[in-house]
Amino acid sequence: MAAAFNEFELIDWIQSRCPVPPHDLLSIGDDTAVVPPQPGRELLLATDMLMEGTHFTFPPATPELAGRKALAVNLSDIAAMAGEPHSALVSLALPRSRGADFAKAVMQGLIDLAKEYRTEVIGGDTNSWEGPLVINVALLGTAPQTKSIMRSSAHAGDWIFVTGELGGSLASHHLTFTPRVREAAILKETVSLHAMIDISDGLASDLQHILTESGMGAVIRSQQIPISQRVSSELSAAERLQKAVSDGEDFELLFTVSPEEGQRLLEQNPLAIPLTHLGEITSEEGAFLEKEDGSLIPLERTGWQHQL
Amino acid sequence: MAAAFNEFELIDWIQSRCPVPPHDLLSIGDDTAVVPPQPGRELLLATDMLMEGTHFTFPPATPELAGRKALAVNLSDIAAMAGEPHSALVSLALPRSRGADFAKAVMQGLIDLAKEYRTEVIGGDTNSWEGPLVINVALLGTAPQTKSIMRSSAHAGDWIFVTGELGGSLASHHLTFTPRVREAAILKETVSLHAMIDISDGLASDLQHILTESGMGAVIRSQQIPISQRVSSELSAAERLQKAVSDGEDFELLFTVSPEEGQRLLEQNPLAIPLTHLGEITSEEGAFLEKEDGSLIPLERTGWQHQL
Repeated sequence: MAAAFNEFELIDWIQSRCPVPPHDLLSIGDDTAVVPPQPGRELLLATDMLMEGTHFTFPPATPELAGRKALAVNLSDIAAMAGEPHSALVSLALPRSRGADFAKAVMQGLIDLAKEYRTEVIGGDTNSWEGPLVINVALLGTAPQTKSIMRSSAHAGDWIFVTGELGGSLASHHLTFTPRVREAAILKETVSLHAMIDISDGLASDLQHILTESGMGAVIRSQQIPISQRVSSELSAAERLQKAVSDGEDFELLFTVSPEEGQRLLEQNPLAIPLTHLGEITSEEGAFLEKEDGSLIPLERTGWQHQL
Repeated sequence: MAAAFNEFELIDWIQSRCPVPPHDLLSIGDDTAVVPPQPGRELLLATDMLMEGTHFTFPPATPELAGRKALAVNLSDIAAMAGEPHSALVSLALPRSRGADFAKAVMQGLIDLAKEYRTEVIGGDTNSWEGPLVINVALLGTAPQTKSIMRSSAHAGDWIFVTGELGGSLASHHLTFTPRVREAAILKETVSLHAMIDISDGLASDLQHILTESGMGAVIRSQQIPISQRVSSELSAAERLQKAVSDGEDFELLFTVSPEEGQRLLEQNPLAIPLTHLGEITSEEGAFLEKEDGSLIPLERTGWQHQL
């Protein structure tokens, strides 16, 4: 049976799991969290709300994985700016019927990932209700001033790269993916990143954000797209490609660099994961997929599979 | 009938209602919001999640008032630290059946209040689902370094003050209350504030937070408690007092100052609202209510009414 709990007991429990933060913060227990000035660094603020039934279901998710994902998607946003995560605020609407152990498991999954990324949980808001689990994380990150990597800085002729592999995340990977925070930091040290985004809605959708914000177009070569082994091998080649282009929640980094820097990345990949040159940014608007025979079709999130 | 809408259209609409921010921020549209360094100022971070059915119901709430309240409770937290609100991230779980106009009304209520407090909506996350409305606001504020007013700084002998009037907020005032941001700023300029908190759970509960964090006790005089006219006049005197002590969501400021500073506040109230000297901080732990006859009873959130 679910044990009864109250908000203050849960806060005490959370606090006991969060050692004195390394950032010299005031911890949980005042009206707001307090973070000292971050001289010379701009502040990055991300937030995501995850709802049971929409962003995860039990099963296959566990409460730990739901908590983990709520932080992970925000870490991925900080990664997309090549920032460093700093501290998190966690708001919960907890299903009353599931009790205290469920609530603690959600927070444990979140706190475990926070520790991996040197991120402190510095505050939040806990509530219970008759509805399903809702978790909101607001994540503070930092970056050297004016060094955040925006979506709007793609240049004509840039090479387009993606980390890792794409497609098939929704089966389970979306609960366990690795936010590419370290990879973004290494890339930023190695090359001059132009535009960057994390792939949450799918390659086609998220590339479009870069193109819209930058006022550019792009050509992606179908043969270059790194299709994940998570995509069922029982599908046709065209179906597999469509999944890699259209599936959401891969949380890989999509970025652009100059051709010279791109060449360097191809010669020596500084990451421990694949890095793929997908295509190029063009000055003419519109996103296109270049087929094996060299012909171009519009790169759309859906509806182009029959053209392959 | 509710009009259909999608996330991107709603974001565009929100963006069109948020003019270029005065803080030199990057606006909505990248992976994270970006705020420039705030030299010499510490960062205050508050978050609150409001759920339909728990924190408001329709009616008597309107979507505008629900959005307003979601920001107002966070502004009140920043006020309790004597900070300045800066910028907000807004996450929504929108009931799909209620459509686009409902979503816009929620945001309009929030944005209207944000403008009053020179606070910019700089990012967020919009979702729709079959569940009730959930709104999470994460609010960034700032204060001169080490000048935030904590709960933990009450001294023995301090006079305890409260702004405004208490009790009866849950009938409707909780949807329309004024966050005491300006009042906190004036108080901070006028006197040396020791401890401060906003009254969200009720005078008895929130005073206890100050006492626990400060390791102190307190005596409150029952005759001094400013009972709001919102509390029904049909109740007995004891019932009215209990409501003023125990009702939540007044969002007034409860604070302590030295007796000398307290005397100055009594002689010349710098605020346009009532300011009441309720009692004193004591070095012995425990919170007590001093009755008219001078006897003391424990100040508890509930269960003491029969002793009056």
